Amino acid sequence: MPLTVTDAVLDGAPVGVRAVDGVIGAIGPDVRPEPGDATLDANGLALTPPLVNGHTHAAMTLFRGWGDDLPLMQWLEQRIWPAEARLSGDDVYWGTRLACLEMIRSGTVRFWDMYWHQLDVARAVLDSGVRAVVGQPILEFEGAPDGARPEDAAEGIAKLGELGARVHGALTPHAHYSVTESSLQLIAEISRTQQVPVHTHLSETGQEVQDCIDAHGCRPAHYLDRLGLLNERSVLAHGVWLDDEELELIAERGATIVTNPVSNMKLAVGGAFRYPRARTAGVAVGLGTDGAGSNNALDLLADMKVFALLQKHTAVDPSTVPAAEAWAIATGEHAPVLGGRPLGVGEPADFLLVETSGVEMTCGPLLESLVYATSSASVDTVVVDGRVLMRHRQIEGEAEVRARALEASRRVCA
Amino acid sequence: MPLTVTDAVLDGAPVGVRAVDGVIGAIGPDVRPEPGDATLDANGLALTPPLVNGHTHAAMTLFRGWGDDLPLMQWLEQRIWPAEARLSGDDVYWGTRLACLEMIRSGTVRFWDMYWHQLDVARAVLDSGVRAVVGQPILEFEGAPDGARPEDAAEGIAKLGELGARVHGALTPHAHYSVTESSLQLIAEISRTQQVPVHTHLSETGQEVQDCIDAHGCRPAHYLDRLGLLNERSVLAHGVWLDDEELELIAERGATIVTNPVSNMKLAVGGAFRYPRARTAGVAVGLGTDGAGSNNALDLLADMKVFALLQKHTAVDPSTVPAAEAWAIATGEHAPVLGGRPLGVGEPADFLLVETSGVEMTCGPLLESLVYATSSASVDTVVVDGRVLMRHRQIEGEAEVRARALEASRRVCA
Repeated sequence: MPLTVTDAVLDGAPVGVRAVDGVIGAIGPDVRPEPGDATLDANGLALTPPLVNGHTHAAMTLFRGWGDDLPLMQWLEQRIWPAEARLSGDDVYWGTRLACLEMIRSGTVRFWDMYWHQLDVARAVLDSGVRAVVGQPILEFEGAPDGARPEDAAEGIAKLGELGARVHGALTPHAHYSVTESSLQLIAEISRTQQVPVHTHLSETGQEVQDCIDAHGCRPAHYLDRLGLLNERSVLAHGVWLDDEELELIAERGATIVTNPVSNMKLAVGGAFRYPRARTAGVAVGLGTDGAGSNNALDLLADMKVFALLQKHTAVDPSTVPAAEAWAIATGEHAPVLGGRPLGVGEPADFLLVETSGVEMTCGPLLESLVYATSSASVDTVVVDGRVLMRHRQIEGEAEVRARALEASRRVCA
Repeated sequence: MPLTVTDAVLDGAPVGVRAVDGVIGAIGPDVRPEPGDATLDANGLALTPPLVNGHTHAAMTLFRGWGDDLPLMQWLEQRIWPAEARLSGDDVYWGTRLACLEMIRSGTVRFWDMYWHQLDVARAVLDSGVRAVVGQPILEFEGAPDGARPEDAAEGIAKLGELGARVHGALTPHAHYSVTESSLQLIAEISRTQQVPVHTHLSETGQEVQDCIDAHGCRPAHYLDRLGLLNERSVLAHGVWLDDEELELIAERGATIVTNPVSNMKLAVGGAFRYPRARTAGVAVGLGTDGAGSNNALDLLADMKVFALLQKHTAVDPSTVPAAEAWAIATGEHAPVLGGRPLGVGEPADFLLVETSGVEMTCGPLLESLVYATSSASVDTVVVDGRVLMRHRQIEGEAEVRARALEASRRVCA
């Protein structure tokens, strides 16, 4: 059934939106419901595009708060890896459902995931009503938990494709240092022939850069490029330690960097993504939360502020990343491959209705309020694919999801 | 009327609290209402002490979002100072009421304020039901807006003292560089004889340190000490550029530093408060939001996370400022002068009831959820002085306060 939203506000002016078959059929001041439409009275709420979380491990909601403030390797070896070895597909399903709840509540309706049991992740995405690009990590170092095998990846992506239009597959080699060179080459080949994205970690720690130089005689971006893994299908999480030449190469190849400022600060990787330099070079940039194990929220609206703050702090310049730029990056406007789309006829019927009368909003422009002043509690309504997922902050089935996820969490964090 | 809260949870165990005449009369598993008590069923919410905002300019909610992302001096000269010159006492009253709403909503019930029209600030504090230490800035540089005169300060503090027990006066010289040496000496003298605190800015920018060395031959903390302004009554906002010797001196004198990480990052002062060094030296430390002009929220629960993140990032050590330490600092546990008190018999009946069943909370300890994972939306109920200020996130009179503040904001931001 078509859905018509009336009495919303866009850029300060009244607006209506009509969604038909999951697509925006009409948007403008004169849009009125047609006979038989479902209707939603926005009652003056602001209409905005939704957010795109460019990098996460959604089901890690199960490990949230379990081993905070530990050094990275201790956290991984003593807490996360043993717990991940105990995960069933159902655990991952409920952990991902919980993550989807939190993302919906904070305005994110599309995310890039990398986690075990990808078919269960996909089921959770579809059942939650959101969109995602998912992939099972390929991990080949000694002692690593069992990941996907690159030679099975094509089949996995085909299976994901059959599940529904809101979920897509990506090739997800964990990182250049945790997958063999021959597997990386195979992945590059599959990506090229099947035209599927590659989502991987890159340059998160300084150690990883040095190790790459020692092992391959070049820095990580050059190594990926040599293997055919740097192109417009590449989604590179972190990129903290990329130097000028690497940033220019990435821009030239059309690859995307997803920065995860909260995770980088919480794990204390020691640097900040060199966004101003990346911007000058013309790199496509998105924003991610990373997993709830290292953030610990999946609240991109909150992380937008931290992104802007960290960049201003690092540049020693308060005009670095003004509010509108942080917002554009979080909605995917600066990185087409992430799949964020503007509001417009023929675009996916995905949008938010945001409260503008909260006590945290005063005389400034809406985007400045959203980036700097309000919390995710100002997101009132979330529509994806023309379907209302949240209304007045209520999501159907929330209590069951939380109870089942908590059950799984208690079992695996033991 | 006494108030008894039943069925709350403290450290995982059931607890009740009985407040009599604004003070906790009983707290423990067996507390039951007595005949004639008002009662409040916490229904399993967690009981916690409230937060203390150690540094703000509350009425700057009126300027929120007005001139974001501008360089500091341009923001002050073109936006803030002209607007402040237009402020009436009533404007400040409504701006402060709005600030109090936001602080209550995010769990802060006591704050240290520095702003014009201190009697109107005090009225707003009292009418909002919270607690504050207020003071009118003393500003003596050429072209500055009219501040308080130090010779009137004692009288001002006496007047504030007559208004009610929830508001106290402080001497608030704006900063060592914006007040004359003789005035600073007079302020030190009044503070000593009347035993009132001095709340001032210190070492926010590197420029200020160099200027102090040029003008007085020493760094700012030494200059304050020379004037008798470094003692257990001193509340020093920022402290970003303090060196080891200054931190040791401040610790020795028993003065308190209030760090404002979000403001420092947003204004890009270029450094971070050297908390690990201050901690080793034994400095008393509190947390502040600074004004809504440079944050732009007054949400200490959110800023706790940024404080921990910035310290981990700066130290390149994820174990720096673990969650419980960030929480203790934000509740004033590490800085007695700020006035935060633990929960206990004979203590002020000030506390929060916090939701623990939100989707953002999973298997970790409550404090880790509060610091890293949840937003202020998890604060359900706020009690101050034995009086319920917020219940299920509803605050009496909220709509009027917002409307009046917005009116004032639109008029002054012109």
